[in-house]
Amino acid sequence: MRLALAAAESARGATSPNPLVGALIVDESAIEPRVLATGFHVAVGRAHAEVDALRRLSEAGGDPRGKTLYVTLEPCNHVGRTGKCTDAILAAGIARVVVGIGDPNPRVAGGGADRLRQAGLSVLVGIEEAACRWQNRGYLRWLRCGRPQLVMKAAISLDGRLAPRAQPGASIGPRWLTGQLARHKAHLLRAGCDAILVGAQTVLADDPALTVRLSDAPRSKQPLRVIFDGSLRTPTTAKVASPGSLILTSDASLRLKPDHASALRDQGVELAAVPSPSSIDVASRRGSPTDIDLHQALRLLGERNILFALCEGGGILHGAFLEAGLYDEVALFVAPLLLGDEGVPLLRHVSVPDVSASSWLASPSVTQLGSDLLIEGELRRGGFSVK
Amino acid sequence: MRLALAAAESARGATSPNPLVGALIVDESAIEPRVLATGFHVAVGRAHAEVDALRRLSEAGGDPRGKTLYVTLEPCNHVGRTGKCTDAILAAGIARVVVGIGDPNPRVAGGGADRLRQAGLSVLVGIEEAACRWQNRGYLRWLRCGRPQLVMKAAISLDGRLAPRAQPGASIGPRWLTGQLARHKAHLLRAGCDAILVGAQTVLADDPALTVRLSDAPRSKQPLRVIFDGSLRTPTTAKVASPGSLILTSDASLRLKPDHASALRDQGVELAAVPSPSSIDVASRRGSPTDIDLHQALRLLGERNILFALCEGGGILHGAFLEAGLYDEVALFVAPLLLGDEGVPLLRHVSVPDVSASSWLASPSVTQLGSDLLIEGELRRGGFSVK
Repeated sequence: MRLALAAAESARGATSPNPLVGALIVDESAIEPRVLATGFHVAVGRAHAEVDALRRLSEAGGDPRGKTLYVTLEPCNHVGRTGKCTDAILAAGIARVVVGIGDPNPRVAGGGADRLRQAGLSVLVGIEEAACRWQNRGYLRWLRCGRPQLVMKAAISLDGRLAPRAQPGASIGPRWLTGQLARHKAHLLRAGCDAILVGAQTVLADDPALTVRLSDAPRSKQPLRVIFDGSLRTPTTAKVASPGSLILTSDASLRLKPDHASALRDQGVELAAVPSPSSIDVASRRGSPTDIDLHQALRLLGERNILFALCEGGGILHGAFLEAGLYDEVALFVAPLLLGDEGVPLLRHVSVPDVSASSWLASPSVTQLGSDLLIEGELRRGGFSVK
Repeated sequence: MRLALAAAESARGATSPNPLVGALIVDESAIEPRVLATGFHVAVGRAHAEVDALRRLSEAGGDPRGKTLYVTLEPCNHVGRTGKCTDAILAAGIARVVVGIGDPNPRVAGGGADRLRQAGLSVLVGIEEAACRWQNRGYLRWLRCGRPQLVMKAAISLDGRLAPRAQPGASIGPRWLTGQLARHKAHLLRAGCDAILVGAQTVLADDPALTVRLSDAPRSKQPLRVIFDGSLRTPTTAKVASPGSLILTSDASLRLKPDHASALRDQGVELAAVPSPSSIDVASRRGSPTDIDLHQALRLLGERNILFALCEGGGILHGAFLEAGLYDEVALFVAPLLLGDEGVPLLRHVSVPDVSASSWLASPSVTQLGSDLLIEGELRRGGFSVK
């Protein structure tokens, strides 16, 4: 199953709205099981992992009859862009199917495993479940909540600052804190997601391109760039004012600035109005300048098949997503420097009354990248206690 | 030399104002060198490492004649609390001496190695120099600058906060962010230093005991507790208002609060007046409430044979030491939680105009302690550039 997971992983960023899936065909007749073929779901619209593995086996002149199929996610039992995987498995004469996790997709939901069992195959579901679930956390979040899995991504100093204090008249452009290895890893994170989210203030301050730039892994598909811009302040001169960008703004701003909206659209930018948060939300966020309902914004992204999204800040948007309880994960790059209390804080407008009420990482993982650290983990809210 | 360093390390915290020193006596006559005896400087007033190793060899019935002595620091050539090590080495008939680093102590400075060379021994100086220098960085700092090596120690959240926002009327006492392993390590750091430094605000807010509490390593000697309290606000009810504490305050406060000073002295607390910083310093620190000259305060600690000091904050004192350029090292415990921008910042009144002007760790080391991290390293000031 670990091999199947690894195969699936190689397509990260290319499969949405489909899940990542990997499959192995294994000969278990000998004492030492032998992997005959490996397959994975390469991209949406392409063959499913099971079919891919069967095709590779056939190309290699192998015989699937009586063999075992390992697959990270329950085989589908419906005709979508491709045919039913269950039919392909049955036609190939596979004898046994081992499944990582069931597919909660209502069009699959148990149907695949049941169909195979009814046809007389031995079917086992629930192997390496945690790893299979983690690999497809974007897909599972999207199915369950109708919104993408959301990752807080930032590069901060040891004392939690995004940047030194804002310099009036300072040159525009991001001022990196982290080294080359960390920045490369940040581009890998971008490449693995469907959308990159930023606030309008970050566009104004840093003018980021928000593209995947990986010399060693050219990639045709760029994640959607999403700018949270309730007041429609994104200038037409911004790097993101180009095709592949979606500006989420308010109806009021579209009405107030029709010419600016048209100019942005002329440059290939898509604009969408998201309702403003209810008055209660505004009060609780104390005038957050995102000025759009974050829950509704994420649902809108879900409707556009965004399963996995990376929010790159700045502090206002990070704070607003955290306070709204919408962050699922954290990917924090920590540079080994101190920027002081005048530096720009990671989280703006976030109030934590006591330690136990904080958001926290249950099992943080730490990676050293040169002199920098990457701290990653699932975010939990409240109930923190030191051990 | 690595073995000698490890032997020396076991006395950390007990030797000041003497250095940590370890020694081996090795038989190098065979192809495979054989360690005959290991010694170290256990505590001030006790035998030096070389003499300790010779004694142990003699107790084991060994013969030092013709053997090689490895020692992390140059043997002394003067009579202090103990006799000259050079005499002991010559009397024992040692043939060869390998020294980690020379001792810059003006009473030794080359004298030990020269004396042994003149007596016909083969002497090699400068083996594992970096490690030997690092082990005795407190001693070397003290000899060179007349002040202790100063470590910034703090436990912070991922976003660089010492605590959630201060709660009016909240119960007094430290609110831990880090788990048991990290807190144990923090006590080990305390045990290895000569003094623990805190600001008066931390005493008022948290009422820390500032003692070494290690069940598995009982230790008779507690580091000196030093409270930076320019306005003499430490209450007589504080845990630190007891023997083993030194309050550094101002002449003005001693004059203004003679009764409070007497009451503290009656409880066994020592009080010392440190000059106020010059008016230029006050302006540059923008009214830091420590209100005493930090350079002079550290020199005073140096005069009291404090070679290695751990400053545990809070944010005002951390900020003041950092801005004064007095921090040599950092030991930051990072707990996996987020406390938001209302949380108490690690560094108060610190202004860093741009990334390159920040204080930074050249080669940070990272240790995972349960869910927490310990980030340690030497602090450099300015000249930071990302790689």
